[in-house]
Amino acid sequence: MAEQIEFDQAHQTLHEITQALDNGRFVHVRRQLQDMEPEDIAVLLEASPRKAREVLWQLTDPEDYGEILDELAEDVKDALVSKMAPEKLAEATEGMDTDDVAYVLRSLPDDLSREVLAQMDTADRLRVETALSYPEDTAGGLMNTDVITIRGDVDVDVVLRYLRMRGELPEATDALYVVDNENKLIGHLSLTTLLTTQPDTPVSEVMDDADEAIKVDTKDSDVASLFERRNWVSAPVVDEHQILVGRITIDDVVDVIREDAEHSMMSMAGLDDDEDTFAPVFQSARKRSIWLGANVLAALAAASVSNMFEGTLQAMASVAVLMTIVPSMGGVAGNQTVALVIRGLALGHIGQSNKRELLLKEAAIGLLNGVLWAVLIGLIIVIWKGEVELGIIISVAMLTNLFVAGIAGVVIPMVLKKINIDPALAGGMALTTVTDVVGLSAFLGLATFMIH
Amino acid sequence: MAEQIEFDQAHQTLHEITQALDNGRFVHVRRQLQDMEPEDIAVLLEASPRKAREVLWQLTDPEDYGEILDELAEDVKDALVSKMAPEKLAEATEGMDTDDVAYVLRSLPDDLSREVLAQMDTADRLRVETALSYPEDTAGGLMNTDVITIRGDVDVDVVLRYLRMRGELPEATDALYVVDNENKLIGHLSLTTLLTTQPDTPVSEVMDDADEAIKVDTKDSDVASLFERRNWVSAPVVDEHQILVGRITIDDVVDVIREDAEHSMMSMAGLDDDEDTFAPVFQSARKRSIWLGANVLAALAAASVSNMFEGTLQAMASVAVLMTIVPSMGGVAGNQTVALVIRGLALGHIGQSNKRELLLKEAAIGLLNGVLWAVLIGLIIVIWKGEVELGIIISVAMLTNLFVAGIAGVVIPMVLKKINIDPALAGGMALTTVTDVVGLSAFLGLATFMIH
Repeated sequence: MAEQIEFDQAHQTLHEITQALDNGRFVHVRRQLQDMEPEDIAVLLEASPRKAREVLWQLTDPEDYGEILDELAEDVKDALVSKMAPEKLAEATEGMDTDDVAYVLRSLPDDLSREVLAQMDTADRLRVETALSYPEDTAGGLMNTDVITIRGDVDVDVVLRYLRMRGELPEATDALYVVDNENKLIGHLSLTTLLTTQPDTPVSEVMDDADEAIKVDTKDSDVASLFERRNWVSAPVVDEHQILVGRITIDDVVDVIREDAEHSMMSMAGLDDDEDTFAPVFQSARKRSIWLGANVLAALAAASVSNMFEGTLQAMASVAVLMTIVPSMGGVAGNQTVALVIRGLALGHIGQSNKRELLLKEAAIGLLNGVLWAVLIGLIIVIWKGEVELGIIISVAMLTNLFVAGIAGVVIPMVLKKINIDPALAGGMALTTVTDVVGLSAFLGLATFMIH
Repeated sequence: MAEQIEFDQAHQTLHEITQALDNGRFVHVRRQLQDMEPEDIAVLLEASPRKAREVLWQLTDPEDYGEILDELAEDVKDALVSKMAPEKLAEATEGMDTDDVAYVLRSLPDDLSREVLAQMDTADRLRVETALSYPEDTAGGLMNTDVITIRGDVDVDVVLRYLRMRGELPEATDALYVVDNENKLIGHLSLTTLLTTQPDTPVSEVMDDADEAIKVDTKDSDVASLFERRNWVSAPVVDEHQILVGRITIDDVVDVIREDAEHSMMSMAGLDDDEDTFAPVFQSARKRSIWLGANVLAALAAASVSNMFEGTLQAMASVAVLMTIVPSMGGVAGNQTVALVIRGLALGHIGQSNKRELLLKEAAIGLLNGVLWAVLIGLIIVIWKGEVELGIIISVAMLTNLFVAGIAGVVIPMVLKKINIDPALAGGMALTTVTDVVGLSAFLGLATFMIH
């Protein structure tokens, strides 16, 4: 009877295999790996600490290497591939989709990649070389070349007999492409239409037009949003002369969607989107320290603002005690706006025509929340510290900073995007620097003016 | 000839339509909307400020309402639906997939939703009511009931004739489901197999087993990761008795993947994942102020730490000037770890078996970067302020805080997950509170001990 999939099973397996490895029961682990699907082995590898990962890779059936490599996150794949012999790699790529072989080869050093290509048979090599000639983040880099083409002037019956003769169809085939004798795309015939049409109907009568073919140089994120909007399963790719060059399938697009969406979150924390959860310590520390270095500059900028008011801090220690509150609130409020704008830019919701509207809205929210928290914090400080003047100062500084945070939260990511800096990467830190500097200046400046 | 899709076109259209609306050229806009695909109108609505959005909705052909509503983000959809008359809504749902009607109805108040259901014909109403009976975030809430079933004992030829007689197939059909006479799922026959098999072959000989059917109560994020791993286009859904109840298609799964991935980013900034970019000011301000309120507590916690050291701050204003640096660096470093752990938890990479490994790794990275930045910041402070003792103090505090940040960055999200609090929502703020308190205590405590 059909067995249901258990989701805790993945972690159970991981736990068992880790224990079996620790106990040196390699034969047992090898047998377990043989029973697993390649895509599940990929998840197991990603979830394994590095040493266990290498042992597991050795114990995996080399026949599965290709499919596993294709499913692995980039960093994990690179680490494993860099230790494989070129012949083994060439072997692993047999039977893989062209775009997936290209994905594996792209990360290799040039000479190694050439060696692997040299080991492949001519037809495969040519197809992979074509795939490698397109930039990775375009439709050309995403597409497969395993396309089934038919002519428009034949009957459905002929197509049916051709398919039966041909045998197996490429994965995720949901349509056949209709081309002329120069391989120019004219239309497509979906399998469902093929199955529901009378056999004596000519293809040209029932095919759909080719008016939404993807150009080979379209950006991968644009391809993804087309697939999302149109609910496509696969789509044809054409060159500038409308010649059919390949086909993109939804499984590769899903990877792009996932990566795009993760990119914002990881970048906002200053991480690579494909950072391996179990990357080597030195490698991770080095990558992350670049981000910390940027933050040192931001922190020193804030400290030099405080430094200008050293006299006030000297005179009134309670000002020093409270000086972190206003920058902290501004940073949090501003980052809410930054996150909203980054998502809006990624989804294509924000542009020239509505940026003013957005700025007004976020400034208004900043003002509203500014008033609310100015009053509340002011009251808290008056009650806590018993100094009305300090309460007024913190209130005014809070209102100013939350208002500025709303405006900066819209302006900073949009300006960064305009000058081609990734807003997800730099937006949060730039915003925090602004709210720190404005928050400290407002609070310490007012304190100096009113009290000192 | 086939027209290529231009991506800047979307914003061009938005710009034109906004201008036409401003000039009151409603007839022109109505005509333009008629030429657009429903999914493109959905994006246009999402990218429009609220007033323009309502005018556009009035100008849209009501025939497209159903498809547009299905594509809209939840907040935007809710706002539009809440102003529609029940009859109009019932009309709009005609021809929509069952799961999509359920998606639209779920957000309505109960009495309104009942009214809409009352306007639908009996067969449709029953199907939608069934869909509504499953929780929204399960396979039952995602599935459609438009499934084509066949028997295993017939020949392929019979199936082909049945399909031709039937005419159109449901969207994204890539397989027919083989059931017994109690509607129990036995297997599935993919369209590609159907097309490449000789007509006299019995279905049971060429069908695939039903060993990976999705249970109706499976969580939607688990459904999504199954689709991602297995590269499915559609999959059957069964109840606890293995009875076929529906079918999930990749287009609905893509929405889940996008939402899941966006959820982490938006939650980490303290936003709803479906917050409308152009939500009303009051509504947004209220939602966001909850998060600001939580941050007030965190900021006050940090201020009360400083308050304990008021004497030291009074005695040495340069300590006050520098006191924001260590907490800031700890917060940034810790949030890198938090982001990594949140993604790892979401992808299922982190569990019992590898948490120790992860903790050691992040602690080691914290220590390494701690040493690096302790030395650098120490030197900068000695040069800037000319006080060696202050340099030593900030170095020791920095090392401590970055080390603690690495550990807290792993422990906090994992503990939150264990006690069923969303780590993406609360992790960052909890971490920042810890690094603020530890950073300030270490720096001010050491300063008090050594200097004061």
